[in-house]
Amino acid sequence: MIEVTAGIDIGGTNSVVGLVSRKGKVLMQATVSTVKYSKAKEFVKALDNKIRELFQNMTGEYILKGIGVGAPNTNYYKGTIENAPNLPWKGIIPFRDLFLEHRDIPFALTNDANAAAVGEMIYGGASKMKNFIVLTLGTGLGSGIIVNGEVVYGHSGFAGEMGHMIMEPGGRECGCGRQGCLETYVSATGICNTVLELLALRKGKSSLRKYKFEEISSKIIATAAADGDPIALEAFDKTAYTLSIAIVNALAFSSPEAIFLFGGLSRAGDLLMQPLKKWVDKHVQIFFRDTFSILFSSLEESNAAVLGASALAWKELDYDKQVTPE
Amino acid sequence: MIEVTAGIDIGGTNSVVGLVSRKGKVLMQATVSTVKYSKAKEFVKALDNKIRELFQNMTGEYILKGIGVGAPNTNYYKGTIENAPNLPWKGIIPFRDLFLEHRDIPFALTNDANAAAVGEMIYGGASKMKNFIVLTLGTGLGSGIIVNGEVVYGHSGFAGEMGHMIMEPGGRECGCGRQGCLETYVSATGICNTVLELLALRKGKSSLRKYKFEEISSKIIATAAADGDPIALEAFDKTAYTLSIAIVNALAFSSPEAIFLFGGLSRAGDLLMQPLKKWVDKHVQIFFRDTFSILFSSLEESNAAVLGASALAWKELDYDKQVTPE
Repeated sequence: MIEVTAGIDIGGTNSVVGLVSRKGKVLMQATVSTVKYSKAKEFVKALDNKIRELFQNMTGEYILKGIGVGAPNTNYYKGTIENAPNLPWKGIIPFRDLFLEHRDIPFALTNDANAAAVGEMIYGGASKMKNFIVLTLGTGLGSGIIVNGEVVYGHSGFAGEMGHMIMEPGGRECGCGRQGCLETYVSATGICNTVLELLALRKGKSSLRKYKFEEISSKIIATAAADGDPIALEAFDKTAYTLSIAIVNALAFSSPEAIFLFGGLSRAGDLLMQPLKKWVDKHVQIFFRDTFSILFSSLEESNAAVLGASALAWKELDYDKQVTPE
Repeated sequence: MIEVTAGIDIGGTNSVVGLVSRKGKVLMQATVSTVKYSKAKEFVKALDNKIRELFQNMTGEYILKGIGVGAPNTNYYKGTIENAPNLPWKGIIPFRDLFLEHRDIPFALTNDANAAAVGEMIYGGASKMKNFIVLTLGTGLGSGIIVNGEVVYGHSGFAGEMGHMIMEPGGRECGCGRQGCLETYVSATGICNTVLELLALRKGKSSLRKYKFEEISSKIIATAAADGDPIALEAFDKTAYTLSIAIVNALAFSSPEAIFLFGGLSRAGDLLMQPLKKWVDKHVQIFFRDTFSILFSSLEESNAAVLGASALAWKELDYDKQVTPE
């Protein structure tokens, strides 16, 4: 019997269900519409059916050991999705309980950044680490924080919201209703707004001046930076500067062994990493110098959400210290 | 047999040794000169002798279960005091190993803020909490962070340095060699510098104008604020503002159930707490509203260092879940 877990990544439009081995191989994967089901109960039933269907399509002897779910606005302790603005079901959805109506099996649910952190621990570059942080640099900035080998959920279950650390009181307006949060500066969206500021501030030529406000993207900025565009390069430098402050503050807080960068903006590679290391080196407290690394995530991005979710289930099984045969 | 632990608070001039019951009663206490011993080995011998002496003076059947030490510049993992600028012994002192030459007994060593946090957990207001933070507001700002019932030491052993989170890049010069650290604003020293800034900024009358720069103290400012002095009141408001940002960022990071304030500046009581609650309420992210409290430490300040150190030993014994009879 080969043990697998199911990883489910719940997105606003579609959700992905995958069956994953202990070593992080996605054996089977399929999509379920999120928006098609107006009731969460029906959606969970569809997910459960999809798991059964995937199992039927596999040749060989497999056993399902657990289910992990990555979703927005989750409460790990309660197994709920709460008031998610981008999902069809309003209010507090008892997602774990709905699942357990179908199966009596270890189940865990958390947000995608925590799932990515567990994925990094179970399959990735953090397999031997007890203290590390994963930052997902997408539309916003998510974080999964590991302390003493465990995800930090905190008293409320909502810990690990580094994207909402206030970096500039009174600064940029944030989706959370406050101002100056880290993710308004350090994210795919944040760097676009930094470019707008710089275009206003600097007089020099830039290939970025030809775009409409709503056209600009972190990918366009990265391409321009790779071509030596001074505004694009300065935007990466400013982004790295703000991120460096967040990183040295995280070091002061929990002293991670590594900070892993993941998601859209991290695809810029050295364009981000080079100024980031420069600024971290300048800002780090002497105690922490040489105690940590800044790395790119080792999870393959196309599979990462399902991998992270499935890793949650392995973690729940406390399989993180032993590797079972493939 | 009544079980006790020894708590040792190592200060720059004198150190205090106490024998403490599981319920946090200091049964015996005595002082040992820190500066008298040029060699750490001799100092440890003197501490050990003092413990024996205290035991001889007690009537009744007592047994020593462990030793806890609070000291500056410690590494919990290694049991060392490293390059402490305010202690007589240079380099890396293997403090735990020196102690274990005298006794084979559970031993733990950490900084005073971590010790205060463990004290709060073992004897104080956090006895039922798994996630909380103690902030010690003295000359600097120390922090002891508890996540999932454990002190956060991090990969390096130096975690929990919230006083050195950079709040204002390029701001006030800090003893750590950097600029804008939290403790340069939020500490007994920080509020004095805030008063200096405000005296320069504001034209109005203030009783604080009559002091020399080097005379001003957090106590003088608190007295002036209690008398309604506008500069003193504004200094508390600004201090509370900066602290509120640090607190909401800590909530975003580890979502503690409580933040305990301790030490010199916290003696100002409502002068600090009232504006602090106002600003935290304004700055907190909606997720975390109503998930935490801001409290004053319940440890008696005169005994707190010895209590915290002794609590470390109880924690090491994993006695934190059971209370033994007095």
